[in-house]
Amino acid sequence: MQDLPTSAFGDDLDDFEIEIPSWGLGRAGTRFETYTSDSEPDTIEERIEAAREVYEYTGHGKTVSLHFPWDGSTREDVEAVRGLLETEGLRAGAVNANLFTMRENATLDDRLRYGSLISPYPDVRDAVREHIYECIDWMRLLDSDTLILWLPDGTNSFGQLSFFDMYDRVADQLDEIEDELRDEEEVLVEYKPFEPAFYATAIFDWGSALSFSEAVGESASVLVDTGHHLQGANVEQIVGYLSKLDELGGFHFNDSKYADDDLVTGSLDPAEVFRIFTTLREADSRGLLDMHDVSYMIDQAHYVRDPTDAMIESVENVQLAYLRSGLVDFEELHSYQQDADIKGAEAEIYSAMRTDARPALKEWREENDIPTDWRDARSE
Amino acid sequence: MQDLPTSAFGDDLDDFEIEIPSWGLGRAGTRFETYTSDSEPDTIEERIEAAREVYEYTGHGKTVSLHFPWDGSTREDVEAVRGLLETEGLRAGAVNANLFTMRENATLDDRLRYGSLISPYPDVRDAVREHIYECIDWMRLLDSDTLILWLPDGTNSFGQLSFFDMYDRVADQLDEIEDELRDEEEVLVEYKPFEPAFYATAIFDWGSALSFSEAVGESASVLVDTGHHLQGANVEQIVGYLSKLDELGGFHFNDSKYADDDLVTGSLDPAEVFRIFTTLREADSRGLLDMHDVSYMIDQAHYVRDPTDAMIESVENVQLAYLRSGLVDFEELHSYQQDADIKGAEAEIYSAMRTDARPALKEWREENDIPTDWRDARSE
Amino acid sequence: MQDLPTSAFGDDLDDFEIEIPSWGLGRAGTRFETYTSDSEPDTIEERIEAAREVYEYTGHGKTVSLHFPWDGSTREDVEAVRGLLETEGLRAGAVNANLFTMRENATLDDRLRYGSLISPYPDVRDAVREHIYECIDWMRLLDSDTLILWLPDGTNSFGQLSFFDMYDRVADQLDEIEDELRDEEEVLVEYKPFEPAFYATAIFDWGSALSFSEAVGESASVLVDTGHHLQGANVEQIVGYLSKLDELGGFHFNDSKYADDDLVTGSLDPAEVFRIFTTLREADSRGLLDMHDVSYMIDQAHYVRDPTDAMIESVENVQLAYLRSGLVDFEELHSYQQDADIKGAEAEIYSAMRTDARPALKEWREENDIPTDWRDARSE
Amino acid sequence: MQDLPTSAFGDDLDDFEIEIPSWGLGRAGTRFETYTSDSEPDTIEERIEAAREVYEYTGHGKTVSLHFPWDGSTREDVEAVRGLLETEGLRAGAVNANLFTMRENATLDDRLRYGSLISPYPDVRDAVREHIYECIDWMRLLDSDTLILWLPDGTNSFGQLSFFDMYDRVADQLDEIEDELRDEEEVLVEYKPFEPAFYATAIFDWGSALSFSEAVGESASVLVDTGHHLQGANVEQIVGYLSKLDELGGFHFNDSKYADDDLVTGSLDPAEVFRIFTTLREADSRGLLDMHDVSYMIDQAHYVRDPTDAMIESVENVQLAYLRSGLVDFEELHSYQQDADIKGAEAEIYSAMRTDARPALKEWREENDIPTDWRDARSE
Repeated sequence: MQDLPTSAFGDDLDDFEIEIPSWGLGRAGTRFETYTSDSEPDTIEERIEAAREVYEYTGHGKTVSLHFPWDGSTREDVEAVRGLLETEGLRAGAVNANLFTMRENATLDDRLRYGSLISPYPDVRDAVREHIYECIDWMRLLDSDTLILWLPDGTNSFGQLSFFDMYDRVADQLDEIEDELRDEEEVLVEYKPFEPAFYATAIFDWGSALSFSEAVGESASVLVDTGHHLQGANVEQIVGYLSKLDELGGFHFNDSKYADDDLVTGSLDPAEVFRIFTTLREADSRGLLDMHDVSYMIDQAHYVRDPTDAMIESVENVQLAYLRSGLVDFEELHSYQQDADIKGAEAEIYSAMRTDARPALKEWREENDIPTDWRDARSE
Repeated sequence: MQDLPTSAFGDDLDDFEIEIPSWGLGRAGTRFETYTSDSEPDTIEERIEAAREVYEYTGHGKTVSLHFPWDGSTREDVEAVRGLLETEGLRAGAVNANLFTMRENATLDDRLRYGSLISPYPDVRDAVREHIYECIDWMRLLDSDTLILWLPDGTNSFGQLSFFDMYDRVADQLDEIEDELRDEEEVLVEYKPFEPAFYATAIFDWGSALSFSEAVGESASVLVDTGHHLQGANVEQIVGYLSKLDELGGFHFNDSKYADDDLVTGSLDPAEVFRIFTTLREADSRGLLDMHDVSYMIDQAHYVRDPTDAMIESVENVQLAYLRSGLVDFEELHSYQQDADIKGAEAEIYSAMRTDARPALKEWREENDIPTDWRDARSE
Repeated sequence: MQDLPTSAFGDDLDDFEIEIPSWGLGRAGTRFETYTSDSEPDTIEERIEAAREVYEYTGHGKTVSLHFPWDGSTREDVEAVRGLLETEGLRAGAVNANLFTMRENATLDDRLRYGSLISPYPDVRDAVREHIYECIDWMRLLDSDTLILWLPDGTNSFGQLSFFDMYDRVADQLDEIEDELRDEEEVLVEYKPFEPAFYATAIFDWGSALSFSEAVGESASVLVDTGHHLQGANVEQIVGYLSKLDELGGFHFNDSKYADDDLVTGSLDPAEVFRIFTTLREADSRGLLDMHDVSYMIDQAHYVRDPTDAMIESVENVQLAYLRSGLVDFEELHSYQQDADIKGAEAEIYSAMRTDARPALKEWREENDIPTDWRDARSE
Repeated sequence: MQDLPTSAFGDDLDDFEIEIPSWGLGRAGTRFETYTSDSEPDTIEERIEAAREVYEYTGHGKTVSLHFPWDGSTREDVEAVRGLLETEGLRAGAVNANLFTMRENATLDDRLRYGSLISPYPDVRDAVREHIYECIDWMRLLDSDTLILWLPDGTNSFGQLSFFDMYDRVADQLDEIEDELRDEEEVLVEYKPFEPAFYATAIFDWGSALSFSEAVGESASVLVDTGHHLQGANVEQIVGYLSKLDELGGFHFNDSKYADDDLVTGSLDPAEVFRIFTTLREADSRGLLDMHDVSYMIDQAHYVRDPTDAMIESVENVQLAYLRSGLVDFEELHSYQQDADIKGAEAEIYSAMRTDARPALKEWREENDIPTDWRDARSE
């Protein structure tokens, strides 16, 4: 039976950071309906306050990912956000440029349904790029160095747009955007197989994201949203191969059963989160990356749950997976693998995976003056 | 080479009817954004006018499925709808009770996120049932005899609700609802594997719909929405088995590649529509059902396309599939099947599937004074 | 933090039984290749010996599912199997009639590719039914009361066989077979979406299995093979609904990521096994079934691993899931559910799911003189 | 209504070539059973004779892909194959190195279950590479310039092998293999998400194949097997992006509904084949590739059908899709796309897709003295 070296884990968690998405703390909706009530955060003030609460109850999430224009549409708004974060003892994380809504420009918005960077309309492509440049400014204003680009671009039928125009437009725009970035800044390219487009998506999988990221240059890398895969995709292998290719930029964590379901991370398939962190630790142990340089972020949307509760649960599930993955001895594992000793290799993995990491987490919380039972401490 | 007996087809199409959904003629959105413009129908008046246009250009779609409270929330509203339909020379088809939005009751709406008929709150379940009774009244007011129930009910995590309570509540409520129906009226029970619920859905597949339909009684049968299946599901086999069990009530047609994508029917996979109609014709030829008693309906949502264009295309694709399926000679097919002569059986199917049915459709349009090229006749 | 009442678990495991498949202890292959060596069991003697080993190291698996003609093709063979089982201190479990291979009859075999019970050839259908009757005889000879029917029947193209003939033939044959059974005997009807047929399968999902099982009569119920589902299927909900309908007969456990992968149960998705047992316990607590009357069986195939190792791991994973599910307090859970208190409900589930059940398992092993570390005790 | 310029098509088909796989003309099996009879080809002589028959009845398939050691395991065998091809008026196409069976070496075979190029055993990796070198020799002996590598390599559990070792071994071996090739020779790298490995595959998707192909050098490109994708993958987009990146090497055509089902190409989803050829023609029209330089091959396996029949049907379906795709006017299509005129773009696509290309095919057959009805001309 595995003896869990809890103290070691405590230290380890200290080095770990995970970002909380500002947009994930408001009540989300489906295409059918959004059920708002008075019980969940709504304004940016309330959402940043909720982020602080997540940090308070988990010890992580001091950094908040932002989404513009949802979190503001002027420089003044962004300065206000900065102030709010400071007040709550938090800091800004990655900046997400929302490319499907630019509320300030109704005429543009209507044509955004044909895509943003892949739009057949040159003026739309230009306006979108300008919006992204603005987001880069705001990123700097917020002392952040990470821009995230998720393109909601694609088509709903074969023939609506040429795959070749689609490819060229993404490549060209990304290239221009990357030119705007400074050396220490980075852009993470996100992929997604479908939704909102339901036939073809401009950046539909890790392979296409990789090809764009490689074309764009050093400052670009790939963002893995765990829910953005076709059924059956082996996410940890994608993580491994991206690490190997030095193109892994970060994560959007959530859980999913059918599509981009945006459920609480690890709520249905905690083993997958464990395998992802085990793969990251192995990449780190082999010198392929420093796992603390990867951007870990939650990206969820809840139309039923209290979003703050759900966010805390996600952070907790990530912490538990992170801890358990720390129990794998890669030297031993590798030696089993070299002998084709599957039984031995599995025992190594199973032992870590089955361990209950809650005692270690509790100890770490106590050491860091974090309430050990947030459910009691927090009334829904 | 197959010689298409076009005249025969013309007669055949005369007997066919397909319903147009009032809600499918307005601009739809995704959970991210809805891009409305002035170019598409919005009010119920405009949408019914658009339905008339679909009828005008396709010769089908004289019947319009309605959705309450989207199309009205009072008896007066419904009377107005009735008048509008008459004015346009149309009639009401199936009545859909919207169970995720009951705008008249904000307090209720907030708790609707926990489900409608499966709600843990008895008063919510009662209110939902009352809304359905009201829809039944309106159905009668509209001279319709078909009620469609799609429950947006389910859960986002294991444990949120017991599968047993979920089952019992659906069964109990459906039973009470069925009691309200008169002999000549029917209720179609729709199933869907996910969305808006992303872990479990109360009526998630044809098997569960069948078990509820059988429990409820004679007036209930199953509605097959072609987009409401897990990847890989054999929809035509489900249609066949439901026909065999005398439980096939009707269809919501659309096309999908990933999830409930609500694309133009037959735009990506026209062969599936062909196989569905071939299966229906075979069921008819075996006396299992009268294929003209089945309710054929379109159910689509378009956030990019002009919805009226898309609806016309869907009707056209259904007409073409219907025509081509008429070319299969089931006696000959059966004789190949009895001899395990796969080559022969396939030739019979291929020959019908590959035939271009547009000449037959054109002839039928000419005979019925329908413009032969709606794209020219209609400016987007 | 949950305090695991280990002693209670020990008692609980005593009541649990799980069957080991004779065919899962030999080296399996893929359609490409089978890599046999001297290291794994091959003959029926060796495989029963391996089953005894599984029992020895896990305390479960005293019952062995058999597969005919793989495990014998004459009454003498079956008597020999009976003797072998007795010698090893084991007993016979469910009897599986293999319908895709009847080696004694080469002419028949060739035509079996068109299906067994759905064959277009009446003489093939008769011969298959005769083989099943023989299996029923052998079942009695082995003091077993459970017959399992998995039909490898289906088609590879639309048109190869009518869905209606397919349905009728299955229903008619099952009816005749059920007539052969005595009151205390039962037949479990297995479903599978594809493989070996790749277009349509005669019994393709739980809904179709349910409709056959209901038609056939009291002695028939449905067998759930965890790997026999389309991507995304909610297996525990199927288990719940089948329990509710009093039609759950048993399980074939294994794990899968893509198709019917037949991997070690719980090796990739242990949470699903936990949810299945939690659902069973809830069904039991509500009086819907006695969970100890359900037939639990492993069904795996390993072309790389040592099959006995893999079988032991599966039993262990089932035991751990079984134990953890025992920690859920359904009264408490239900009270959260009634209040729509999702946070509370999840906490109840999470707490059980995250618990490391290995100490309890170890204690039970010690009490029952079972080696606590089978990997050490057993050399690959 | 589209007026099909049949004569033009005839000329066009003259330039087209598609390879027939020697292994696809024998009776295949599933992992459960293989049903051989006297009615299908078995020896290499019979299979090459069947290939000639395919050519005779379709006018295509003059080139035959070979698979070693299935089609021979010595230089003498290969010379015999060469002679057989000449006798039948055929020529050798791509050479496939079978990496899961090397019958000449039983000891090796047993360990091949742990993988070929990713094997933990250096001597296995060396032997596999030697076998590939031998295949390169034989390729030259056959006047072929194309080597196809499909690695049946992967794992059945997390931990069995490190993703990093997996990646490195594939990259290293491919590099060495590519060094063996001459300037005018090429290697096509095939990907597959699962089977025979059921957890992770070394080259699992187009992205991983692309990364290996790019690393290896100029002579490597990617092979798209239409059945080697996760559910929902947009194959024509992958084809488009690979064309754009100048990394599309060739195709293995077949149809599939669930997994790598190896059904008759275009039998279930003919529209996908049409979209693939339309995408290729567009790539060609943009100067991204010469579509006649791409290797088109069939790769099917039939355990029920007569394999020669099935092969002829596949070639016919490819011919029909090829012809129909020739009707798309890309200039017109592009002009609709630039105006975001979806209705117009779809009309362009629909018109081509719905056209019955059989008259054009018939005309071409008559011009080339090919029987116009192979089903009549050939008795099963």
